[in-house]
Amino acid sequence: MHDLIIIGGGPAGLTAGIYAVRYGLDTLVIEKNVVPGQIATADRVENYPGFPSISGMELMNKFKEHAEKTGVIVHSSDVRSVKDGGDKKVIVTDNGDLEALAVIIATGANPRRLGVPGEDTFLTKGVSYCATCDGPFYAGQNVIVVGGGESAVTDALILSDIAENVYVVHRRDELRACSILQKRAFDKENITFVWDTVVQEIKGGEFVEKAILKNTKTDEITEMEIDGIFIYVGITPNTSIADVEKQGAGFIVTDEKMESSVSGIFAAGDCRRTSMWQVVTAVSDGAVAAISAHEYITSVKFEN
Amino acid sequence: MHDLIIIGGGPAGLTAGIYAVRYGLDTLVIEKNVVPGQIATADRVENYPGFPSISGMELMNKFKEHAEKTGVIVHSSDVRSVKDGGDKKVIVTDNGDLEALAVIIATGANPRRLGVPGEDTFLTKGVSYCATCDGPFYAGQNVIVVGGGESAVTDALILSDIAENVYVVHRRDELRACSILQKRAFDKENITFVWDTVVQEIKGGEFVEKAILKNTKTDEITEMEIDGIFIYVGITPNTSIADVEKQGAGFIVTDEKMESSVSGIFAAGDCRRTSMWQVVTAVSDGAVAAISAHEYITSVKFEN
Repeated sequence: MHDLIIIGGGPAGLTAGIYAVRYGLDTLVIEKNVVPGQIATADRVENYPGFPSISGMELMNKFKEHAEKTGVIVHSSDVRSVKDGGDKKVIVTDNGDLEALAVIIATGANPRRLGVPGEDTFLTKGVSYCATCDGPFYAGQNVIVVGGGESAVTDALILSDIAENVYVVHRRDELRACSILQKRAFDKENITFVWDTVVQEIKGGEFVEKAILKNTKTDEITEMEIDGIFIYVGITPNTSIADVEKQGAGFIVTDEKMESSVSGIFAAGDCRRTSMWQVVTAVSDGAVAAISAHEYITSVKFEN
Repeated sequence: MHDLIIIGGGPAGLTAGIYAVRYGLDTLVIEKNVVPGQIATADRVENYPGFPSISGMELMNKFKEHAEKTGVIVHSSDVRSVKDGGDKKVIVTDNGDLEALAVIIATGANPRRLGVPGEDTFLTKGVSYCATCDGPFYAGQNVIVVGGGESAVTDALILSDIAENVYVVHRRDELRACSILQKRAFDKENITFVWDTVVQEIKGGEFVEKAILKNTKTDEITEMEIDGIFIYVGITPNTSIADVEKQGAGFIVTDEKMESSVSGIFAAGDCRRTSMWQVVTAVSDGAVAAISAHEYITSVKFEN
C-alpha cells in the first residue's frame, strides 16, 4: 500500500508529487497520456513566473524533469475509479487495483470543442479557449468570442481592453451571463454582438483569417475577416472516476485545504471548483493538497 | 491616477503585476528594497516547479526579468500608508502621494529571529525558518527545532520523516500546539523534547556544528552537536500600512478572490492569512488578486 496516489500528471499532479516526495511520503503519480496537462497544447505561455515566454510543451517537460529529479515516480495507466474504504483508498486501473492511504485527484478539465471544420487545424494558430492565457497575443487585432455565458462575456471584456474589436457570436438573442457583466459588455464601444449566429467553419492559411457564420433564423451565410477566435461553450472536468461532491459540470468541491467531501480524497487544479484555470493556481493547489494529504496520512498512521 | 498600485515586488507582487499588465491595466509596483522577497534569502529552492534547484536570489531575478519583459514598472519607494477614499485609494510614500482605483498589498512577512549569536552568520548554512522549504537538505542528519507552537510541532513532524533525529528545544515545559499535534509528536521515536531550554548561541565552521543550550530553571549550559536549527518563534506580516481586517500577528483576512475587508483593497502572498508561506502559493495569490482587481476596476470605471 502506498501512502499517497496522485491521479494526473499535469502541473497540479506533478507539483503535488514534488511536495509529497519531499515530505517523505511513499508516492505514486498515475497518468494515462504521454504528454499530460492541458497546458501542453498552448503555443506560448507568458504568465507562469520565471519563464517570460515558453511553449506549453516545453513548460510541461520542465515540470516532468523537475519531478523526476525529485524522485517522483510516474506510472502509466488509465484510472477507472477511486473507491473509498475509509483508511484505505482503492484505485481501479486498466492494469489492476492499487491501494493508498490518501488520493489526490488532479485529472484536469477540457474545454468543450465547437466541433466545426478548422477548429483543430488552427488550435494555437488563432483558435483559443482562454483570453487570460492568449489574449495579449491579439493586441490591436480583431477577434470573435463564441458563447453567451459568464466565461464568454468575462473574456470578451478582457479582450476588449487588448484587441481592436471584439465580436461576440452567440446562437441565441440574449446572454446567459449575469446582468452586471452584460451591462458592462454592452457599454464597451469595441464589443459588437452578433446574435442568433453560429460559427460554421474556420478558415485561413498558416493562421486564422476568417470565420464562416450562419444565422440560425434566416440560414444566411456570411464571412467575417478575423485574427482570432475564442471559444466558450463549456468546460468538462475529468472527474467521473470519483464519487465525491461536485458542482456545475462536475467540478470537485473542496475546502481551503483541497480536501473533497470524502476524508482522505483531495483535488487540485482544473478539475476542482475554482474561478481560474491557470498554471499558477494549479501548482499552488497541488502543493496545498500534498501538504494536507501529509497531515491526513500522519494522523491515519498515528491512529493505527 | 493609476488603475492599480501593487505594494511589494516579491513573487506575489510581481505575478500580480504580470497579470495586470497583460489585462491592459495601468499598473505600478512599489518596492522599497533592491532585492525584494523573503525567498531571495533562500540558499536553494527546490519546490518551485520548473526549476529543480535554484538559489532564491536567482529565482527572484528570473521573476524580475519576466516582469520587466511584460512591461511591469517597478517604482522604488517606501509606502507609509494606504488610505481608502472609496473609488480612489491614496498611497502615501516617502516620495509623495500616489493614487489608484485599486490596491494589492503584497508586502510579505518576516520570521521573527531568535536574536542569538550565530543566527545571522549561519542563515542558509544550517539555520532555517521553514522545514517545507529546507527540510529535505537534512536527510539522515540531526536537527533542532526551536519553539513550542503549532508551526514548531508541525515542522518537527515533517522533519522527523526526513532527518535522523529531531530535538524540539522549548523554553517552557509544555507545548502551545494543539493536543492532536502534541500526541503525534510524542509518539514519534526520533523526536526528543528538550524542555525549559533556550538556544543561547549557534556555532560552527562553514556550516552549523553545534548549539549552546541553557536550561532556564537551573542555568546549566550544555552543548549539542547538530547539523541544522529550525526556528519557529513567530512570523510578522508587514501590514501596518493598511487599516483592513487582520488576524493573529496581523495577517490580512481575504476572501477566495483575495479581497480584504475594504472593497478595492486586495492582499496576496505571505502577508495574507494562509496556512502556507510558499512561492507557489504566493504567485497563485498574485494572479488571483490581479484578476479580481481587474474585475473591480472594470466595474468602478463602468459606474463612473
